[in-house]
Amino acid sequence: MRILLIGAGGVGSAFTAIAARRTFFEAILVADHLLERAEKAAAIDSRFSAVAVDASSAEAVTALCREHAVTHVLNAVDPRFVMPIFDGAYAAGADYLDMAMSLSRPHPDSPYELPGVKLGDDQFARAEEWSAAGRLALVGIGVEPGLSDVFARYAADHLFSTIDELGVRDGSNLVVSGPAGPTFAPTFSIWTTIEECLNPPVVWEDGRWHTTEPFSEPEVFDFPEGIGPVECVNVEHEEVLLMPRWLGCRRATFKYGLGSEFIDVLKTLHKLGLDRAETVRVGEVEVSPRDVVAACLPDPATLGDRMSGKTCAGVWVTGTGTDGAPRSTYLYHVVDNDWSMAEYGHQCVVWQTAVNPVIALELLANGTWSGSGVLGPEAFDAVPFLDLLTAYGSPWGVMEVPR
Amino acid sequence: MRILLIGAGGVGSAFTAIAARRTFFEAILVADHLLERAEKAAAIDSRFSAVAVDASSAEAVTALCREHAVTHVLNAVDPRFVMPIFDGAYAAGADYLDMAMSLSRPHPDSPYELPGVKLGDDQFARAEEWSAAGRLALVGIGVEPGLSDVFARYAADHLFSTIDELGVRDGSNLVVSGPAGPTFAPTFSIWTTIEECLNPPVVWEDGRWHTTEPFSEPEVFDFPEGIGPVECVNVEHEEVLLMPRWLGCRRATFKYGLGSEFIDVLKTLHKLGLDRAETVRVGEVEVSPRDVVAACLPDPATLGDRMSGKTCAGVWVTGTGTDGAPRSTYLYHVVDNDWSMAEYGHQCVVWQTAVNPVIALELLANGTWSGSGVLGPEAFDAVPFLDLLTAYGSPWGVMEVPR
Repeated sequence: MRILLIGAGGVGSAFTAIAARRTFFEAILVADHLLERAEKAAAIDSRFSAVAVDASSAEAVTALCREHAVTHVLNAVDPRFVMPIFDGAYAAGADYLDMAMSLSRPHPDSPYELPGVKLGDDQFARAEEWSAAGRLALVGIGVEPGLSDVFARYAADHLFSTIDELGVRDGSNLVVSGPAGPTFAPTFSIWTTIEECLNPPVVWEDGRWHTTEPFSEPEVFDFPEGIGPVECVNVEHEEVLLMPRWLGCRRATFKYGLGSEFIDVLKTLHKLGLDRAETVRVGEVEVSPRDVVAACLPDPATLGDRMSGKTCAGVWVTGTGTDGAPRSTYLYHVVDNDWSMAEYGHQCVVWQTAVNPVIALELLANGTWSGSGVLGPEAFDAVPFLDLLTAYGSPWGVMEVPR
Repeated sequence: MRILLIGAGGVGSAFTAIAARRTFFEAILVADHLLERAEKAAAIDSRFSAVAVDASSAEAVTALCREHAVTHVLNAVDPRFVMPIFDGAYAAGADYLDMAMSLSRPHPDSPYELPGVKLGDDQFARAEEWSAAGRLALVGIGVEPGLSDVFARYAADHLFSTIDELGVRDGSNLVVSGPAGPTFAPTFSIWTTIEECLNPPVVWEDGRWHTTEPFSEPEVFDFPEGIGPVECVNVEHEEVLLMPRWLGCRRATFKYGLGSEFIDVLKTLHKLGLDRAETVRVGEVEVSPRDVVAACLPDPATLGDRMSGKTCAGVWVTGTGTDGAPRSTYLYHVVDNDWSMAEYGHQCVVWQTAVNPVIALELLANGTWSGSGVLGPEAFDAVPFLDLLTAYGSPWGVMEVPR
């Protein structure tokens, strides 16, 4: 297996740190628009090398694949670049993995009732081509989407006979401290967070997808391992588009434990138009307000030493258990920032995202997982994935949730 | 009198509309970095002409003054440009007026306790030169500072024997409506609003100036003419630096009726670093986040048709009345947006700012006001100013305030 990793930001760098301890691959080429950043991430192991790439160019991705005999492309840049990387990998005959799917576009008339172009639609539209070519695009294989979808598959196979709701719930008690105490600093890409939180949230219900106003259906979820209760709201996320394609459920949701301060920041950015990805004219230059917001905040990958607390990803499943009784269960994965920093030198949010594509690539390399077409993580057997996650030193958990 | 108006934004354009109805001047040259904008403002009357100018260049200002035999320069651009225009006017031997003073810089060690460089310090440092040259710099002659300082002088001369506090209070019930109902849109320059609201507020007390945390000493003030109660907080403003130089008072404050939504927006911009005037690198360009915020919001001068409500400026004076009894009085000026739009085609906030330099220039032109040095509005007799304000069709009011 010869891997092309595109993106040496927070998640990409954590990926190289985790992969460097494994033996399943022959080579990893790290590509970034900043060669220096790629070189830094690649310096970890002799099987890694670095190169500069323009991720917006499918041709550039294809050329890199061919030049380096790449078998698998892992996309670790923000979701603006999904389609050129996806297309570039296909043209080169490589398999493809990503951690976020092609972007949505709101419904022109009823954005808060009906979906327009949905997350991943542009990729699923190409599924037959990938199938016919015998190539695999494994989409959404980070932590959320990714591990959350694996949990859903596990619950469907082993814990439940019928499922009412697959409800992804993400929360943390992370605090970032500055010189003067706790400070505001997002622990994940603000570009992506704005994209997913301000788009109309999508919900699967009774056989169809619909959308709502942003931040809808607030709910306090009590997270495990000391994190405790966090206010969660509906957010547009890939799992809602992936899970119902392979798993039977009446309802599928994604709720993000943003907390009231972050929700307020996002609402204010939207009110001022500072969430816009399109450029505005400022004096002599054209610039995207969202890029300016990102440039004003610290790079989340650099915050590990100033962070404390734990982050939790998981899926809350309700329905009928295999014993025929009503069941309400949360399958989850918690990472403590102190542990990920001590063990890997990467903060917990990016570490928790990056470990999953390493595991998936290992399962593909040893033939445990195989397939072709455009597939989500729930299309594969969950057990070997979860076993390997535990073997990587980061076990998962199950708890019953009072309803 | 030959006037050079620098800045054809909201206030500058309203100034030309008001001045066009008066006969006291011979010519007004309107200068802006955008020639088109200057031409539009100058199209109102044959005594007006237009030119492009770089307001950051004192030499450019001096050259314009000499070329057009300018006697008075009115600065109507944002306060970044005070010093080059002030210096440029002086070098040309012209008198100078502005509506905001040279910028402050926080105290390096105790920004929320002690003033550093105060508003206007850079201008007052040059007062002796202006005096010696027999030239007048009339600083802070908009509405606030400006009319508020005139009110304070009137109170000191005619209503009070001793003054405890001169408390400027500014509030409105303005609403901006968009296609989908009320919308967030500042009715005054967001650049200036960020500057004055996020700098440490300055307070005059017992013979010295000190500073506080932003948004300090919240207080609900009940504004007249149907505006009603508005939450006001301390804000850095020129009056606090001007009034104690000429008027005896134990305390001087400025409180701005921002309202909780605007305060929240400003706090969020500050939290994210989007209030910064210095540039940040965004991809290939350098841009000031504060300029990006301004570019994302509508130009306040264009909002008049979508605004409704009234704006109020005034000073709340407490102390001992001329009859020896305790007194608590608010002297104020209210402008209804419907009136200013119908009468002048300019929204009420910029109109209320712009009318004051027209009146001051008229008083200087006919010799009612005269002086040299760097002087605030309270250095002149208030009565002819207030009489002329009424004669312009926009009367002022007085109300007693329960304490």
